[in-house]
Amino acid sequence: MPRQPFAVIPEGSITSTPGFRAAGVACGLKPTGAPDLALVYSPTPCTAAAMFTTNAFQAAPVLYDRETLAAHPRDMHGVVVNSGCANACTGDRGLQDARATAARAGEALGVPGAQMAVMSTGVIGAYLPMDKIHAGIALAVEALGEGVDAGHAAARAIMTTDTRPKEVAVRVAAPGGEYTVAGMAKGAGMIAPNMATLLSVLTTDAPLDPAPAQAALREAVEAGFNLITVDGDTSTNDTALLLANGRASSERITSADGPAYRAFCDALTYVVVELAKGLVRDGEGASHFLSVRVSGARSREEAKRVAMSVANSPLVKTAVYGRDANWGRVACAAGYSGVAIDPSGVAIWLGDILVYREGEPQGMDEARAAALLAGTDVAVRIDLGAGSEDVTVWTCDLTHAYVDVNAHYRS
Amino acid sequence: MPRQPFAVIPEGSITSTPGFRAAGVACGLKPTGAPDLALVYSPTPCTAAAMFTTNAFQAAPVLYDRETLAAHPRDMHGVVVNSGCANACTGDRGLQDARATAARAGEALGVPGAQMAVMSTGVIGAYLPMDKIHAGIALAVEALGEGVDAGHAAARAIMTTDTRPKEVAVRVAAPGGEYTVAGMAKGAGMIAPNMATLLSVLTTDAPLDPAPAQAALREAVEAGFNLITVDGDTSTNDTALLLANGRASSERITSADGPAYRAFCDALTYVVVELAKGLVRDGEGASHFLSVRVSGARSREEAKRVAMSVANSPLVKTAVYGRDANWGRVACAAGYSGVAIDPSGVAIWLGDILVYREGEPQGMDEARAAALLAGTDVAVRIDLGAGSEDVTVWTCDLTHAYVDVNAHYRS
Repeated sequence: MPRQPFAVIPEGSITSTPGFRAAGVACGLKPTGAPDLALVYSPTPCTAAAMFTTNAFQAAPVLYDRETLAAHPRDMHGVVVNSGCANACTGDRGLQDARATAARAGEALGVPGAQMAVMSTGVIGAYLPMDKIHAGIALAVEALGEGVDAGHAAARAIMTTDTRPKEVAVRVAAPGGEYTVAGMAKGAGMIAPNMATLLSVLTTDAPLDPAPAQAALREAVEAGFNLITVDGDTSTNDTALLLANGRASSERITSADGPAYRAFCDALTYVVVELAKGLVRDGEGASHFLSVRVSGARSREEAKRVAMSVANSPLVKTAVYGRDANWGRVACAAGYSGVAIDPSGVAIWLGDILVYREGEPQGMDEARAAALLAGTDVAVRIDLGAGSEDVTVWTCDLTHAYVDVNAHYRS
Repeated sequence: MPRQPFAVIPEGSITSTPGFRAAGVACGLKPTGAPDLALVYSPTPCTAAAMFTTNAFQAAPVLYDRETLAAHPRDMHGVVVNSGCANACTGDRGLQDARATAARAGEALGVPGAQMAVMSTGVIGAYLPMDKIHAGIALAVEALGEGVDAGHAAARAIMTTDTRPKEVAVRVAAPGGEYTVAGMAKGAGMIAPNMATLLSVLTTDAPLDPAPAQAALREAVEAGFNLITVDGDTSTNDTALLLANGRASSERITSADGPAYRAFCDALTYVVVELAKGLVRDGEGASHFLSVRVSGARSREEAKRVAMSVANSPLVKTAVYGRDANWGRVACAAGYSGVAIDPSGVAIWLGDILVYREGEPQGMDEARAAALLAGTDVAVRIDLGAGSEDVTVWTCDLTHAYVDVNAHYRS
């Protein structure tokens, strides 16, 4: 079955999707005065789907969103996102604050508060300053816009240690009419998503039922956010939220199969994978983008486990930072992944240089390896010689700047 | 049953144990000219026990030692240890080189080569320069000494990025006569032992059969080396070797129970735990020694899993380095450990400061927390409120100096 095409919208944002409004404002949560509150709003009720962190300490906004999305899978109106405070490890008061945030936004927008989601990111273990949140919501409602710049403003307001916004939008030509899939995401540290990522809001005007929406989001997250890592730390707040206002004239997608579903899923996956790669490229202190491909695995799960073991190894990451082609650390990290590996069947490449095969080093040309590591994008491949499954994960290097950013995060 | 006492021998070394000789020499494996080959020798045949890395890429010396110790559990004569080259990922040629090292040492000492063990540490994926190894063995045999300084020289020769040797010795008053338990260890990075640690040689003159020797070593390693981590990277070469020459007049220990076994096990455990803590204090770039205690766990395994998750979190480690009392990162790392945790039952302390309980932050006094983090030793405790198991693991912080050391390790 041929797949339907989609086209990337240059400089797109979440408001590239017709019918969505957004704003990003500063309300004093960040001591720098940078924007720290984003609002995304659809007057048309939306089908919603979400994926959340698997961390046992689920932040208050995660607990609130689970509850409200379960009650309103077809009539959500948007989301309030704040940066600067994660509202995590904050107990009952934190949950009340999340609920009050949604209620205040609903009130200001003239929709039920229970049909607004919330997300938070920032310091764990501090309460939300609700006076600032309320003031921010008032400002944001006033600033709501439909143009592409409104989405850009929202994408900036959700940043923490990110150095740039992450936004992707595509247009899909579907039978009956075109639709848009767009997304923004933030997150530069505490990135090792498991079932979801840090914060991401995805918008579409494709007509979509809740079940295929959730199925497509799961598929896209598994192919994107769940294949990246910055530091192996899975956050308490990870949330990916898909809002579908159904305003396009294309065929309604009512189940998780068939060509219309597949086309939507492909477009959503593209958006999520590009956002995920953008997160890694902007990983805290990153100077290299490292892709780790594991092929020849018995299962996809084993391939991912080996790839993540390599991608999370501080020794692999510091070697890439230092442009040191120390491939023995790649073998070592694969070896302690917990997956049963027969070294005599393994081959390892740095870029296109075969460095290890059949249990022996292959006499790597140091000059070629140095040239390869002088670039910003580095590819490592490990073939396990045990099967046919193949997974690629993306990560960044571990640098002095990562230590800088994280040694004094709260101050 | 009262336990027998033991006394720490100040400035002890592996040659504090009667009947053991040692040497540490330079043979050109390290470009700096620092000592890089150690020899430990007992003219009396030794009962031997060992634990090895669980990494799938087992280094050649590990493969060789497994084989030779299985064949000679009661008549080993010593070990050759080189630093500067790990002889890992080196296939058949690496295994032949390990065997040739032992054979040459045996020849020079007048004992069968198959009764000598070997250990290697350094760069992975390079072959041993055998001409240098042979020259080093000749030098080391000539330099063999029985005094405590001979052990100190050996402890220096096995160092890589270590900044100081790690040595511990104790004397045990046993019925029938006293005996000594002594050990040395190296390792500053690629430290996350699993069933064993980086290189450690332990000597004793206690009369001991192979089965209780192995049981005691396993117990000591589980209580010591297996509870530390520097960077979560489990090496290809981890080896802990116990050599017991049986020259003391104390009661022979023939099984893994009874007071004589227990006394030996306590002394060996003390030596291994102190060496393990010494490894962490000298972790690559370390500026803080961090102990992570998890109490109230359903099982020891779950307690260790949560503690290791916290101890390996780059975000926890950089916060400790930056003296930032960012305890939310401790909760976060506990939460993604994979252990089922009910946050409402959890309490967290930084030193003696209760920072989180019953789902809520406890209003930490920042000045007290800052004073606590200004010291070099920091203790974190997490009570899971789910059971009665209790484990403490030890680690160090993640610093700019760790990145320095590892960005250009091979150069």
